[in-house]
Amino acid sequence: MAEPFAREYDAMCRAIELAASPGVPLWPNPRVGCVLLAPDGEVVGEGYHHGAGTPHAEIEALAAAGDRARGATAVVTLEPCNHTGRTGPCSQALIEAGVARVVVAQRDPNPVAEGGLEVLAEAGVDVEHGLLAEDAERLNPAWTFAHRNGRPFVTWKFATTLDGRSAARDGSSRWVTSAAARRDTHVLRAQCDTMLVGTNTVAVDDPQLTVRDAAGEPLPVQPLRVVVGNRDIDADRRVLDDVAETVHLRTHDPLEALETLYRDHGRHHVFFEGGPTLAAAFLKAGVVDEVVAYVAPMLLGSGKSAVGNLGIGTIGKARHLDLVDTLVLLPEDGDGDPADTDINLRLVLRPRQED
Amino acid sequence: MAEPFAREYDAMCRAIELAASPGVPLWPNPRVGCVLLAPDGEVVGEGYHHGAGTPHAEIEALAAAGDRARGATAVVTLEPCNHTGRTGPCSQALIEAGVARVVVAQRDPNPVAEGGLEVLAEAGVDVEHGLLAEDAERLNPAWTFAHRNGRPFVTWKFATTLDGRSAARDGSSRWVTSAAARRDTHVLRAQCDTMLVGTNTVAVDDPQLTVRDAAGEPLPVQPLRVVVGNRDIDADRRVLDDVAETVHLRTHDPLEALETLYRDHGRHHVFFEGGPTLAAAFLKAGVVDEVVAYVAPMLLGSGKSAVGNLGIGTIGKARHLDLVDTLVLLPEDGDGDPADTDINLRLVLRPRQED
Repeated sequence: MAEPFAREYDAMCRAIELAASPGVPLWPNPRVGCVLLAPDGEVVGEGYHHGAGTPHAEIEALAAAGDRARGATAVVTLEPCNHTGRTGPCSQALIEAGVARVVVAQRDPNPVAEGGLEVLAEAGVDVEHGLLAEDAERLNPAWTFAHRNGRPFVTWKFATTLDGRSAARDGSSRWVTSAAARRDTHVLRAQCDTMLVGTNTVAVDDPQLTVRDAAGEPLPVQPLRVVVGNRDIDADRRVLDDVAETVHLRTHDPLEALETLYRDHGRHHVFFEGGPTLAAAFLKAGVVDEVVAYVAPMLLGSGKSAVGNLGIGTIGKARHLDLVDTLVLLPEDGDGDPADTDINLRLVLRPRQED
Repeated sequence: MAEPFAREYDAMCRAIELAASPGVPLWPNPRVGCVLLAPDGEVVGEGYHHGAGTPHAEIEALAAAGDRARGATAVVTLEPCNHTGRTGPCSQALIEAGVARVVVAQRDPNPVAEGGLEVLAEAGVDVEHGLLAEDAERLNPAWTFAHRNGRPFVTWKFATTLDGRSAARDGSSRWVTSAAARRDTHVLRAQCDTMLVGTNTVAVDDPQLTVRDAAGEPLPVQPLRVVVGNRDIDADRRVLDDVAETVHLRTHDPLEALETLYRDHGRHHVFFEGGPTLAAAFLKAGVVDEVVAYVAPMLLGSGKSAVGNLGIGTIGKARHLDLVDTLVLLPEDGDGDPADTDINLRLVLRPRQED
């Protein structure tokens, strides 16, 4: 390929790598990387966004380049923002630094921040977009999904015995899964900005809905806790403690709840741990985007199922999923519960996209 | 280690290898290997049993050794038989050939055939047993289990959706699993000498209960088909066709049925594909020795569970299993059913041995 293009391609690979630096949180802000190339192709600045409240990737790269930014090409994984949030608009900063050309992977899907490329072009900067766009989108899949669809990406998590029970006949479910699986769940919860259950789960199971580390301590930054349903929440419920914020959405419409979470609360990724009735409602509404199933090697023979009535009467109407990942969770030290010596499986599945 | 012992150890390893030669059927006879060592340690004969109706391993090894069997040491994976079946007793053949010493791994657990070592010792042959006995037992795990316990080893197989359903609300279950999983089931069926279901499954699902190859053709040797329960079997049921033999055991007692199959029918390994009620009865009777679960990546939300009431009311009483194998079954060509494009999992589990 032509030399300048090859340089920009290499620079975009590097920008993606920078964006995915270890330790960068997945939310609330998108992960972004930026590389500044001098006209001769030399890298004169690199930067990436370290998380909310810190400079954007372009600002960090411009600072590294100093005067050498003048006449340079900025290679950025995401369209430079055009709005003033906690930092000023990056498009303006690039213009002021005298950048001659901006190559972008993903255009900004956020209606609030879009338009950066137009501002740059109007200022006489040479602009281009689409280079490695799909790879760049994978840096922020839930964030991209949410802005495109006007609702958060939903990961539905449930635990089940080998014979499809999520609780025993008396309602007891501590524990279906092993200590290793429960720790793994907290790792997945930490990747989401929202935890969601129904009022019934709050009434029956009284979960705290927090993210805890391996030692059982709550993480300093917690997802928003969301309870859906018209029933009141008793004041003594753990979901109302002060470890994290909680929102009660008085609706039974999954899509309405999710749109509210996007629009009013800026939420992009919901970790949904609802019971069988709410799970069935989400599935029927077509708003389950990913399924995480922990399978415990035990038999109960009776008890609560993971998912309630889906209105499916015959096998030909079953909802098929694509299995995308299988993880074997070996036993780890727990609190001595019988489940802690079990080997659990974690399956990740996606709804099948019908042709 | 001392030289003679090392030679016999090596010979036993070789005898085990011979016993497990590809193509040797797992039933009805045990797999056996034999190596004959001259006094100087030279291997003068090898043999293995090729299946019912062919010479036993010792006879094959003696034939290979000819006159050189005189004064030799016979290293055999299983105690030489002492009864006259389709072939004469091997213990007598070893004595007549002038073998000086017999080293055995596993003693014969079959009450009908045992006593070979005593006969040899009485004839002045030097005898020893126990060398690599556990490895030798693994050649014939179900056969060994059956003779020790007076009943066949039971492999319970079931298919389930991700949410624990074995059939949809209208009873339809064709197909929960993919074509690849159904082919895999026939491979497992072929390793067993018995297929077992209840009268209800015969009435509702009308299975043929045969083993078929990848092309759908029945294998020339078929396991015994067994139907358990007091209900009559309608004459038009496929289980009564002439592709394989069928036995109807008019009992609801799993242990009684299994003991009958061992005692009257010489059965060692039952592949049990019963419905939820019979599965629960077998589990409660403690006669499920292995569980094979095919997990299909689909959701039904209602329908028949794989296992019925086990009398378990609370999570602490759940029956825990040890997961011993997980296999991912990628899609293969099928008959165009939606399930054929699914990735299925095959889990193999064993009941936990309580301390």
